[in-house]
This record gives sequence, structure tokens and C-alpha cells, in this order.
Amino acid sequence: MQQFDHNEHPHRRYNPLLDEWILVSPHRAKRPWQGQNEKIAEDNRPEHDENCYLCSGNVRSNGVKNDNYTDCYVFENDFSALLRDEVDFENNSNNLFQLKPERGINKVICFSPKHNLTLPEMEVSDIEMVVKVWKEQYIELGSQDFINYVQIFENKGSVMGCSNPHPHGQIWAQSSLPTQIEKTQRNLRSYYDKNQSSLLKDYVEQELKLQKRIVIENDHFVVLVPFWATWPYETMIISKRHFGNIIAMTNDETKAFSEILKGITVKYDNLFKTSFPYSAGIHQSPTDRVSHPEWHFHMHFYPPLLRSATVKKFMVGYEMLAEAQRDISPEQSAKILRELPNQHYKTKTN
Amino acid sequence: MQQFDHNEHPHRRYNPLLDEWILVSPHRAKRPWQGQNEKIAEDNRPEHDENCYLCSGNVRSNGVKNDNYTDCYVFENDFSALLRDEVDFENNSNNLFQLKPERGINKVICFSPKHNLTLPEMEVSDIEMVVKVWKEQYIELGSQDFINYVQIFENKGSVMGCSNPHPHGQIWAQSSLPTQIEKTQRNLRSYYDKNQSSLLKDYVEQELKLQKRIVIENDHFVVLVPFWATWPYETMIISKRHFGNIIAMTNDETKAFSEILKGITVKYDNLFKTSFPYSAGIHQSPTDRVSHPEWHFHMHFYPPLLRSATVKKFMVGYEMLAEAQRDISPEQSAKILRELPNQHYKTKTN
Ligand SMILES: O=P(O)(O)O[C@H]1O[C@H](CO)[C@@H](O)[C@H](O)[C@H]1O
Ligand SMILES: O=P(O)(O)O[C@H]1O[C@H](CO)[C@@H](O)[C@H](O)[C@H]1O
Repeated sequence: MQQFDHNEHPHRRYNPLLDEWILVSPHRAKRPWQGQNEKIAEDNRPEHDENCYLCSGNVRSNGVKNDNYTDCYVFENDFSALLRDEVDFENNSNNLFQLKPERGINKVICFSPKHNLTLPEMEVSDIEMVVKVWKEQYIELGSQDFINYVQIFENKGSVMGCSNPHPHGQIWAQSSLPTQIEKTQRNLRSYYDKNQSSLLKDYVEQELKLQKRIVIENDHFVVLVPFWATWPYETMIISKRHFGNIIAMTNDETKAFSEILKGITVKYDNLFKTSFPYSAGIHQSPTDRVSHPEWHFHMHFYPPLLRSATVKKFMVGYEMLAEAQRDISPEQSAKILRELPNQHYKTKTN
Repeated sequence: MQQFDHNEHPHRRYNPLLDEWILVSPHRAKRPWQGQNEKIAEDNRPEHDENCYLCSGNVRSNGVKNDNYTDCYVFENDFSALLRDEVDFENNSNNLFQLKPERGINKVICFSPKHNLTLPEMEVSDIEMVVKVWKEQYIELGSQDFINYVQIFENKGSVMGCSNPHPHGQIWAQSSLPTQIEKTQRNLRSYYDKNQSSLLKDYVEQELKLQKRIVIENDHFVVLVPFWATWPYETMIISKRHFGNIIAMTNDETKAFSEILKGITVKYDNLFKTSFPYSAGIHQSPTDRVSHPEWHFHMHFYPPLLRSATVKKFMVGYEMLAEAQRDISPEQSAKILRELPNQHYKTKTN
């Protein structure tokens, strides 16, 4: 009988944040790909595009004119999935037909006035502006009495459903704890109650000893490929210090966070020499006025690409019906990312 | 204050199979779409393609020659994600690093020798052949002592990661209960223990009274848009009689199931006059030699298209990080599907 090798043999790994297993089939990276190829996003956009509804000073489809903004710019989403208004609701749900109205606020954040400047190509000081806006928004939205959770995220690239290439993120703030947050919180909480310590702090400390899945590290943050990652090049930014949300970040931490944000997105672009698509977002404590010692600030990156700039991993079929599945092992992915240059491939060196 | 209207106001619905909530934003279907368009699959394939590794009598990439098959054809996947072999494994996982080897068998099922014949265009009698092969495979694979669960599914269309347009499905059979199955089982079980009846039988009976989400019905099966559906045109086939798996299907039920499979896939093709992409799969009792009175045979269809043959719903960003979200309401989708013709749009009428 062969000795088990996690870079060769099919196995399952446990995600303690979601209390779910995933299937790893590392040998399968060898299969040929005859399926769909993605379009490569054209990469010669101008600094200002007069047809872009996110550019500085332009008019949006609802007739509103953007400010002549010069750094990070926030406005309320013209096509919000959540609405502020309270509605009159009579609850006659039964067990199998449960429904409740949901209130919220959706915002759009343009990272910079430059139509062609993505996070990895921005100066760290400009990324700091974005992080500061995230902090302001978390405070402002979270202080509204009907807002109990604030989801900050970015969809990058058309393959990730991003409908405008102008670099921007979104915030969806709402009354309820969304499904993934509620699950994560439940698992963080039960670990905290049992061990009187933060699951992610304990996890990151073990990873720093093992070094196998670390991609980048600075004084205050770590980027790693989680042991239980599902997307081929999925990573997580985890704070070294145990704190629950972005308000608690010191100035030094804000700078270190901005640096590591640039660090990981530069590596991503360098991986396939393309503007690397992903969905990314911060998971942090709810704004529900309850104490949350179990929460530990972190940010997830879920990038779809698998083999090249045009071949993505499809989470379909088995994955939708049965269980998330990955081909390349998390350790292999971490090594590849770790060994990539820290300088953006488009930067001219002299 | 406005009166709540589930076709207008944002709300959340509860999925009792997964114990999860989803967000419904029906008003959002009105936003314009400026994002990625999908390629339309070219639809003039020949009946036999000499370059297709799934066609009858052709040689696959590993050198094996397909039989000269004339109806449904099954073989073991050349690039299996799961392997049969047992491996020697020393378990030194801790709490945060849990891993275990997984064994299994992956198969491919060509639905017919015709390279261009999808389920909605097949004769019901030929679909019956496919259902019989599913039954045989469930029995054969499930009787192996290391197989405790058999996932039968189909990825249709390149947008769903299908790497070969020759109509085919897959079976992944394995030792463990996959994450989604384990969750579903837990919820079916707790309902069963509490009510001494099948959750899905009770659900389908209520839906048949309400009629709002029913798409097709025959003597033995119902197709409906679940109250908690996440994909825009997601449906479920549910058996009217309470039985746990495909072995229990009578001849009449097998025929009725084949008819309704054709019925729903014809409606899907008619919706946007295109070969409609989806991932679909059967959820049924595990083969773990334990009694499962809680399981109720059903089949999920998860189709990605939202507005047209080229505009899909992206489950990204908020959906990946927070909660599944849909625009159009399940009741609107059900009505649209229900009112579509039962005859395939390519059929010549005279
Ligand atoms: O096996 P295929 O068709 O090559 O591959 C497809 O289906 C599999 C099972 O759902 C997925 O894991 C793959 O990502 C997808 O591309
Ligand atoms: O808001 P956008 O960028 O138009 O839309 C995109 O992000 C949303 C939030 O993740 C998703 O619900 C949409 O499916 C996606 O296309």
C-alpha cells in the first residue's frame, strides 16, 4: 500500500471557519483542458473614459453627476439590492415557507479617479486612502440603528461579474447577519468559548511556525493560502494582533495592511501576467452593539483562475451539488505565489 | 409605510434543506447590464464528430477506444478526481489542520451516440435508457464496500465548465458523505424525527395546493421553483411518493421521471431559444447500509442564465462572502417557465 502524500492523493480537508469539508484532488491538475477559455480583459484603458459612469465628473445612468473627485470616492449604489425603507409586514410564514423583509444600504467606492489604475498598481499611500474610507464607512453605516453588518468587498474582472472596469469596490450593509457571516461567527464563537482565544490568532501562529502556506508577512499581517482553501489561488489576509474590526486598526496597522494589500495583488497580477480577477472582501465583527471577542479581522481573496489568464476553475456540478473541490494543493499554490517577484510585471526596471 | 410585496421588496428566505437564508432583491431585475456576455454555444454540431473523444468508436486521449455504442454508454473517467486505491495514512491532524484521505470512483455517461442530441431533444424512451443506467450505476457503485455515496450529475454547456459538448453526465461515488449531502441529510433527518414524515413530501403537497411555484406536474413527479431558489431559473424535480433513492422507482415512475426530465429541459431551451446551460444532479439516500427514512428522491437544476442566452447571474462578491442573492422572484420565474410551450422550439410543426 502506498504511503499517503498530500500532493498526490485525493483527500478531504476541514474548514473550521465554515464547519465544512472540501475535496482536494492534486493529481488532477494533470488533466488536459478542452473547455471554455475566458476573454482576456483588454488592458489599454485610458486614464479617463468619458463613457465610464464611475469616472470623475461624469454623469451616471440615473442622471446624477459624479463629483470631480481626486482620490477615493463613495456614493450610494444606483441599483441597490437592499433598500433603506421599512415595510409593513405580516408574518404568516410556516416552517417550510419562511420569509422576512430585509433592509440595508449599498454603496460603490471608486478606488481612484484613474480609470486604468487597479490596486496592485496604486501607490501604498493611495491604498491607505481606500482603507481609511472603508473604516469611515464601517463606522458611518454601522452606527445606523437598522444596520447590524457591513460587508466590504471588490469584484475585479469581467469574469467575476464586474460590470465596469473602473477600479471600484462595494459595500452592502444590512439588518441581518448574512449566512456566511453567521456560520463563521458561530464557529469562531464556539472555539473562543472553549479555548478563551481567537481561532484565527492560534491558526496564524501555527502557520507561521510551519511556513508551508505563507505567501507574504509583515509586522502586522500575514497572507497565506488557507489549509482549507477551495479556489486554486485563494488567500486570506489575517491580522497578527487579535482585534475584531477595522476601527481597531492603529495607524501602523493601516499602513501595513495597505502594503500587504498591494503585495498580494501584485503577486496575483504577476502569476499569469494579467490583471488578475477575484472577489475579495473583509470579514469582521457585526455592528450589532453586542460584544464580539471571537471575531478576528481578516480578508478573503477568491480568484477563479486555475491554469492561465484564460482558464478558470469551474465550481459546478459536483461542487454545487456535493462539495467544493480543488486540483492543485494549497501548499503548491502557496509556494508558487511566494516565489513570484514582489514587483509588478508592468513596472519598468532600470 | 408601504405594504410588503414579495415581488417588489428586498427580503430573505429560508432554505430548510441547507438551513441557510438567501437574499431576494426582485426590484433589482430592472438594472441595466454592462458586464460580460457569454458566448453562445455553436449549435450546428454533426451527429458524429471524429475529433470528439466521447463519440462512439472514437479513441480517447489515453489511447482507449470507445465501444461502438448505440445507446447510453458508461466508462470510468480518464481524469478521475477520486481514486479507488487505499493509502497508508497516519493521522496527525489537530483541530485546525484536519485532513483525511478519500477514496472513490468517477464515471462518465454518454447519453446517446449522437454528438448533437441533448436531453430535451431525445425521445422519452431514450431518456428512460439513461435513467436505467443511473439506476444500474447507483446499485453497482453503491454495493462496493468503500462507497457510501453516489452523486449523479450533468454539467451542460461550456459556461458550466463542460469540457465536451457531446451530451454526457458524470457520477462521482465516494467513501464520505459530501458537505452538501451531509447538511441536507441532517435537516431532512431532524424534520423526520420531529414530524415522522418527509420534509419534501410535506413541502410538495403544500406547493401543489398553492400552485404558485409549480412548473410541470405529472402522476408521479413535480417540477417547481423552490421557495428558497437561488439561481434565477433554479428548479427541483420532486417525487410525489416518498422514497429515498432511484432503486425504489417503479416502471411507471421511471417513465414519468423521464417524461418530466424532457419536460423541464424543453422549457429551459425554449426560455431563451438556446441550448440551456445548467448543472443538474440527483440527491438521494447514501449507500452506507444504514436505514434512511428521512431521504426523499429529488433532482436539482442550477442554471446560470438570467436575462438572455448571453447574460448570466454572477454568484460573486457579496454572494461568495456573505449570502446567495437573486434578483427575479421565484414566483416570477415559475410563472415564466410554466407559460412556455411544451414543445421544443426547434421542432418543426406542421
Ligand atoms: O469533469 P469535467 O467535465 O472535465 O470538469 C467539470 O466538472 C467537474 C465536476 O463538476 C468540475 O470539477 C470541473 O471544474 C469542471 O470543469
Ligand atoms: O453590483 P454589480 O457589480 O453590478 O454586480 C456584481 O456584483 C454583485 C454583488 O457581488 C452581484 O450580485 C452581481 O451578480 C454581480 O454581477
